[in-house]
Amino acid sequence: MELLDKLNWRYATKAMNGKTVDQDKIDRILEAARLAPTSSGLQPFEIIVITNNDIKGQIKPVAWDQSVITDSSHLLVFAAWDTYTAERINQVFDMTNSVRGYENEGFENYRQMLLNTYPQKDAEENFIHASKQAYIAFGLAVAAAAYEGVDATPMEGFDPDAVDKILGLREKGLRSAVLLPLGYRDEDNDWLANQVKVRKPKEQLVTVLD
Amino acid sequence: MELLDKLNWRYATKAMNGKTVDQDKIDRILEAARLAPTSSGLQPFEIIVITNNDIKGQIKPVAWDQSVITDSSHLLVFAAWDTYTAERINQVFDMTNSVRGYENEGFENYRQMLLNTYPQKDAEENFIHASKQAYIAFGLAVAAAAYEGVDATPMEGFDPDAVDKILGLREKGLRSAVLLPLGYRDEDNDWLANQVKVRKPKEQLVTVLD
Repeated sequence: MELLDKLNWRYATKAMNGKTVDQDKIDRILEAARLAPTSSGLQPFEIIVITNNDIKGQIKPVAWDQSVITDSSHLLVFAAWDTYTAERINQVFDMTNSVRGYENEGFENYRQMLLNTYPQKDAEENFIHASKQAYIAFGLAVAAAAYEGVDATPMEGFDPDAVDKILGLREKGLRSAVLLPLGYRDEDNDWLANQVKVRKPKEQLVTVLD
Repeated sequence: MELLDKLNWRYATKAMNGKTVDQDKIDRILEAARLAPTSSGLQPFEIIVITNNDIKGQIKPVAWDQSVITDSSHLLVFAAWDTYTAERINQVFDMTNSVRGYENEGFENYRQMLLNTYPQKDAEENFIHASKQAYIAFGLAVAAAAYEGVDATPMEGFDPDAVDKILGLREKGLRSAVLLPLGYRDEDNDWLANQVKVRKPKEQLVTVLD
């Protein structure tokens, strides 16, 4: 099946049946997120994968009591860096030099440029920027889940501060950005399962300048 | 070829050869973006597709003179809504009712909830939220381009105000968020073409709570 067919198959699943998703599918969805392009390659986010029922149960009430939190197989929390620091930037550049086996002047100048700008910025501005990168990875995870035939519920409807507290994210310099419960649709109990997918027509979304 | 193989094949192409990408591939990449999930289904962005060489030439100097701006086949500009308005929200909900052929009380209550919150918020806060939705679509476009074997250059390195001016986006209630030149790699002239892809190991990016 082609990617577009799978993107048409997927929808924001509102009821899941509690069935477990095979680990190899979860691994491939996470790998797609890991391969996502991010600004300057910094990958300024982490993904918390929750299968623990107690923790899911704590998150559900701070996520509008949505049943997919607890009926999902794996609950993914995309958490962005709370800010950019010199240490975080250097770690990525050092890793890249180590993997490639050499230093490059242009690349080192670029590192300095980032060190001279990001860490001095307002933490909130940096968090917003880091969140956007997390959303790219989130987009790739959504695509990969559909590709694997795994249902998913893209979710912003939760209290980020409460989720941060439950998971101890702030202490790790992270803040929750967006959730992605993964599992399998429970068609009989999902009002959205058989609704027509609605999107704006291309003409409203795309302008061509030729 | 599987999706992950294609995501490994792709990279942020730094030099393109000017060859034209077939329209059917462009259409499928745009369709993936159109199918992206967005908060409340609002799709709060538009995509400007530029093949016009004059316009590409105007954008290049405000995008760090990156050659892929002019050597790409199609330059995609993801532009987010400058804010959420009642008119914009109502248009989406009216469209959905029209497509589905009926009104639903829960859905109408949800519309009212959005009308009572978004339009009253600070425009900048709304633009940031809309931008994040554009980044989800951007992620799907990146995945779809790779799937189609089309090279792409995810790009934040540009002056958004200048691009807004060149394209007249502000007058349309839009602000440029992120660019995606599409085309074909020029391996002989791309320093990045044969570099090892570097990503953090899974252990640094993913935490499992089981």
